[in-house]
Amino acid sequence: MRIAILGGGNGAHACAAHLALKGHQVNMFELPQFESNIEAVIERGGIEISGSVISGFAKLNKVTTNIAEAIDDVELIMQVVPAFGHRKFAETCIPYLKDGQYVVLNPGNGSSLEWYKILKDSAVKKDVKIAETHSLTYACRLQNPGHVQVNHACPKVWFAAMPSKDTSEMLALFKELYPSAVAAKNVLEAFFLNGNPIHHPTGTILNAGRIEYVYGHLQGNLYKTGTDFYMYREGLTPSVVRVAEALDEERLAICRALDLSEITTIEKLYEDGFSVTPDGKPYPNLYEAYHSEVFCGPHASKGPTSLKSRYITEDIPYGLVTWASIGEMLGIKTPTMHALIHLASILNKTDYWKEGRTAEKLGITHMTIDQLKKYLEMGEE
Amino acid sequence: MRIAILGGGNGAHACAAHLALKGHQVNMFELPQFESNIEAVIERGGIEISGSVISGFAKLNKVTTNIAEAIDDVELIMQVVPAFGHRKFAETCIPYLKDGQYVVLNPGNGSSLEWYKILKDSAVKKDVKIAETHSLTYACRLQNPGHVQVNHACPKVWFAAMPSKDTSEMLALFKELYPSAVAAKNVLEAFFLNGNPIHHPTGTILNAGRIEYVYGHLQGNLYKTGTDFYMYREGLTPSVVRVAEALDEERLAICRALDLSEITTIEKLYEDGFSVTPDGKPYPNLYEAYHSEVFCGPHASKGPTSLKSRYITEDIPYGLVTWASIGEMLGIKTPTMHALIHLASILNKTDYWKEGRTAEKLGITHMTIDQLKKYLEMGEE
Repeated sequence: MRIAILGGGNGAHACAAHLALKGHQVNMFELPQFESNIEAVIERGGIEISGSVISGFAKLNKVTTNIAEAIDDVELIMQVVPAFGHRKFAETCIPYLKDGQYVVLNPGNGSSLEWYKILKDSAVKKDVKIAETHSLTYACRLQNPGHVQVNHACPKVWFAAMPSKDTSEMLALFKELYPSAVAAKNVLEAFFLNGNPIHHPTGTILNAGRIEYVYGHLQGNLYKTGTDFYMYREGLTPSVVRVAEALDEERLAICRALDLSEITTIEKLYEDGFSVTPDGKPYPNLYEAYHSEVFCGPHASKGPTSLKSRYITEDIPYGLVTWASIGEMLGIKTPTMHALIHLASILNKTDYWKEGRTAEKLGITHMTIDQLKKYLEMGEE
Repeated sequence: MRIAILGGGNGAHACAAHLALKGHQVNMFELPQFESNIEAVIERGGIEISGSVISGFAKLNKVTTNIAEAIDDVELIMQVVPAFGHRKFAETCIPYLKDGQYVVLNPGNGSSLEWYKILKDSAVKKDVKIAETHSLTYACRLQNPGHVQVNHACPKVWFAAMPSKDTSEMLALFKELYPSAVAAKNVLEAFFLNGNPIHHPTGTILNAGRIEYVYGHLQGNLYKTGTDFYMYREGLTPSVVRVAEALDEERLAICRALDLSEITTIEKLYEDGFSVTPDGKPYPNLYEAYHSEVFCGPHASKGPTSLKSRYITEDIPYGLVTWASIGEMLGIKTPTMHALIHLASILNKTDYWKEGRTAEKLGITHMTIDQLKKYLEMGEE
């Protein structure tokens, strides 16, 4: 397949390298102002990939900061960037899209709704289809420029198009890349299956003092350095996990109102392969799920090392804010989401309600539940 | 003066010992079910006091669990118990009060409003006057049974009667004990000058994981022990202090609506002698005030060591809940108070809104601002 990967971070490197080594023709694009992210890839013409999923040097077809060139003759455009970059990449792409192309946001965080709206409102009318995944397809990290380590591939990727009447057509193609992908009911079902807004803000905010005391020196403050912080192992204590459980209940209440699958975060962590008991089952509670081998074993990741981490700066404005504002339009109370959004805003001197991707920005606040369900399915109000 | 001290904790020991050594005739009372708190004092007939305020062995007049005996012929009854004990002590006292006696709640947390209401609603009518202080008059800690260490006496005690038309009469007597006491406009002014609900919940909740991870073993959980936690030094980092500042702004907005003094927490910490610069001034900001010698020097106290600490179990239900519910009746938004109350409720599996001393329980929710002001001054609606 001819694919363009948009983005220059961990995830984009992993996707480009993995898919190229699997035999696809892959272009890679980064915005000109972030060219340094892909300099090493441009120089070598490809990406080195290592880890448990696949290993080797993946030669790419093109590596460029020219969007027209990147997406010119591809079948699939896969955008692999943090949520706060989605709008910028959408605006960059749209003038150069061609009829019949597919765009997949990996992961989406509901932003295919925003993409869809931008496309619809755009003067340039293109017959392009859009979909998103529930989560990034890999757990990965750049080791050094042009070398990505991939330790985990998401075993079950939920996938939905906006509108969902296009899902089966798009999924047929997407499964050539990720055979284990399954259809979500619609893009909101996929979005509400993202577990990050449940654990990341909880573990960070309820350890805010710990993180800033230990790592403040990295930000130029003169603190004593303490011991490193391992969020899952040390920060997600039984009482703290109760806050994550409260968030999960609020999330499930919204899913219920929208007739979406009510899959708990415990089940989702199991499905994603992060929290599996030694005999292959889900853990009995969220505390044990967060304290499983992947999160807390000897290879567990440190961090976050700052309150400006994406655990806050992405998962609050493009996670809890979006969810809570959808809850609000449906008349569902989300006091725990509100509490964390409010505290994060103060901690980081940022109005995340204003900065975040609200239901308003997704263009859906004026709809009733039935209108919203119809819009998600048919793309028409 | 003939005084009865009610209570058997740190503060009650400090008050009884200090006032007895100053030459007053002091009785000490504890509820029968907590007799063990005063066993050592009963045995020795008095209290040993040490520290920077006064030292020696203070002989008491009576030490008893019999309330009638304790308050029989005293002029002043001073209740020195945590806020959650106020109602129990009120109900214990009321049948045995005598006309002309004074009751002082040290500190009050607004509970003289509750006392006043209980007295008014009681079948037993007594001509008794009630007042409260803004803060406990000492920083103290029991060293061992019957021995209290007092490291700090509050240099300026704000004092108000309920209703405040009685303040000057009661203050005249109270100043015989604490010459530096000054009149607050009314009991709510005194209550809103208590700084604990500003720093205690903030520093505890935003370090919840840290506290539980380090001290969980004390509660029978099998955590690794980390390093001790010093809340002011390690937990009140610049971002965390912004949450305390937001609480302080909400508190001041309520003070403004009620025409109470708008004294900031920085000024209050200075007045209380906790945060004074080497040249005798208030610190320029709250972060520096919390990082002053008293809080962060070599003699700084450790803790809290549990999320069930009074930093939560007293300062949420008898601090932020009361303030936020008064804000609510005045139409003032207190989102930061709400966020902390909500998270504390989840962390401790306790509905602090239900358990706490709300404006409703103080008997004032049906009043307009003008009616409330009149009630605080005259005691009549």
